[in-house]
Amino acid sequence: MSIVYQVKTSCFLSTHQSQENFAHENNLQRTFYGDVERGKRNLTLANIFKIADALGVNPKALFDEMPNSNEVKDL
Amino acid sequence: MSIVYQVKTSCFLSTHQSQENFAHENNLQRTFYGDVERGKRNLTLANIFKIADALGVNPKALFDEMPNSNEVKDL
Repeated sequence: MSIVYQVKTSCFLSTHQSQENFAHENNLQRTFYGDVERGKRNLTLANIFKIADALGVNPKALFDEMPNSNEVKDL
Repeated sequence: MSIVYQVKTSCFLSTHQSQENFAHENNLQRTFYGDVERGKRNLTLANIFKIADALGVNPKALFDEMPNSNEVKDL
């Protein structure tokens, strides 16, 4: 089984904001951002900062409540 | 001026552990890890998790006390 590396993004969208609107407003490809939310992209550090900026949060917030990598490997 | 995206790693090495030893023990290229410490690499999410694992910390710890991306852009 492949290891999924994922950051947490969707919880930072306001309740009335769709993934599609968020992506459009921030010049992100909707399919790219959808992949990010599903852990399908091996994001680069620059894109992590870009997405955190668009969400208005510190990049570290995207790693909140994420399992550490040992726990991920044990899945 | 280019924007530097950087994670904080060196502070997690124990005081008696050199960058070279840490890289060697964790199958990382020393030059690669040196570049990481200097913010010269646009790390991927998978490598962020790999390095955090090698350092024994949660990936979010690598973003502690980092400026948010707005602040980075203002440099």
